[in-house]
Amino acid sequence: MIIIGERINGMFRDIAQAIREQNPAAVQEWAKKQEAMGAGYLDLNVGPAVSDRVTAMKWLVEVTQEVSELPLCLDSTDYDAIEAGLELCNKPAMINSVPAVQEKMDRIFTMAKKFDSEVIGLAMSAEGIPKDAESRVALAMELVANCDAYGVPLDKLYIDPLVLPCNVGQDHGPEVFETLRQIKLLSDPPPKTTVGLSNISQGTGNRELINRIFAVMAMACGLDSAIADACDEELVEAVATGRILLNMDIYCDSYVDVFKSQNL
Amino acid sequence: MIIIGERINGMFRDIAQAIREQNPAAVQEWAKKQEAMGAGYLDLNVGPAVSDRVTAMKWLVEVTQEVSELPLCLDSTDYDAIEAGLELCNKPAMINSVPAVQEKMDRIFTMAKKFDSEVIGLAMSAEGIPKDAESRVALAMELVANCDAYGVPLDKLYIDPLVLPCNVGQDHGPEVFETLRQIKLLSDPPPKTTVGLSNISQGTGNRELINRIFAVMAMACGLDSAIADACDEELVEAVATGRILLNMDIYCDSYVDVFKSQNL
Repeated sequence: MIIIGERINGMFRDIAQAIREQNPAAVQEWAKKQEAMGAGYLDLNVGPAVSDRVTAMKWLVEVTQEVSELPLCLDSTDYDAIEAGLELCNKPAMINSVPAVQEKMDRIFTMAKKFDSEVIGLAMSAEGIPKDAESRVALAMELVANCDAYGVPLDKLYIDPLVLPCNVGQDHGPEVFETLRQIKLLSDPPPKTTVGLSNISQGTGNRELINRIFAVMAMACGLDSAIADACDEELVEAVATGRILLNMDIYCDSYVDVFKSQNL
Repeated sequence: MIIIGERINGMFRDIAQAIREQNPAAVQEWAKKQEAMGAGYLDLNVGPAVSDRVTAMKWLVEVTQEVSELPLCLDSTDYDAIEAGLELCNKPAMINSVPAVQEKMDRIFTMAKKFDSEVIGLAMSAEGIPKDAESRVALAMELVANCDAYGVPLDKLYIDPLVLPCNVGQDHGPEVFETLRQIKLLSDPPPKTTVGLSNISQGTGNRELINRIFAVMAMACGLDSAIADACDEELVEAVATGRILLNMDIYCDSYVDVFKSQNL
């Protein structure tokens, strides 16, 4: 599993302030910190309070790229902001995200083809998030079909089965695990998978414990990546260990440090 | 996942001494400690240094039952010792273990039928432990067929796919996960599953970390139980969390404490 560092997000006060004041210090500090902990991508989200999202996203891309060579994950429901950001990316980026809604898929996959981007596709429709694995997989199949139709390689598609907090949607947990397993049977090469990890623990006690246990259980079911707190030391240890146990990295006694230095 | 507490084992010096001196204090202390941490069974193993295993096993059963009502798991390659122990058990016990070797299965399943015991069946033959999942599952199928032929209910059979240390047999890891998944398809009701958890981390750094991450990844693949250190607080937290995420126990903020008090 690869960690997509979640911290450069305008929902955090320091990032919102950085964007407002056009002061790159906090953004660049978090970019370097997350990279040092082994993040494979940096998620960039301008947050809810910004009036001009296009300008803000362009600024985030520019100042982040000044200090990090990690690929970026442009995170917005404003597709103009994503497209403006993609124009500035030095290397192929990830688009976060598109649901299985036709007009949105039309725009996003066209954009992905043009910019050689990866795409996070959400297993939800205009009606919302389905409860069972079968319905989630059906929506994943729509995403796969559209991705393919627009000429985007299927291994550039990351399906997010969508995780609900375990204190309110506990019965979704096993359905998410089953969805992850089934996604790997959808095509050859199969799509990749991702989740927004912190959703599983929203409103619970023991948030970090629940996050890291869910992450490695999902890895055993085929989870390839997660948008997560790359600076959570115990999560990083858990993920590095999961990679060893899945035989993805070669065991050595210092495998956690090796994971951090890889930036997969 | 249920924890079968591993600590009453003559490989530990205090237990070896307790057996030698017929002093039950250490045995009974560990029985109570493991029960308080949420163990579901207590494994009893007289260890390698004992000359009269039958007498030692009978003593372990008796002194353990004086302080705990948990079901016991009688752990020996000496089947006379196991049979003598079963004669004394107050409630149905678990036999640990039998490989897929005909004359051994004949004896153990006959014993299991007579004493209403559960049985741990090892996915190994006289030739040893196979490398790939398919061969492990083939041996599991032999265990299932013999269990059924001797009239022992299939949900009293716990298949152990056999775990190797990740620093020497790293490629076995994914095969064990795949074996666990496939075992659940072998019969209806399917056999249960177990592992000797500490094997995965033999000779590694970070032993406890590797143990608990392997445990919850295996849970996501269908692991029902493990012979493990019930007093490893972080393992207990991980397992309790895994049960929440698999929707096996109902979430509440104090779910770790609830797990400990359940003795499933």
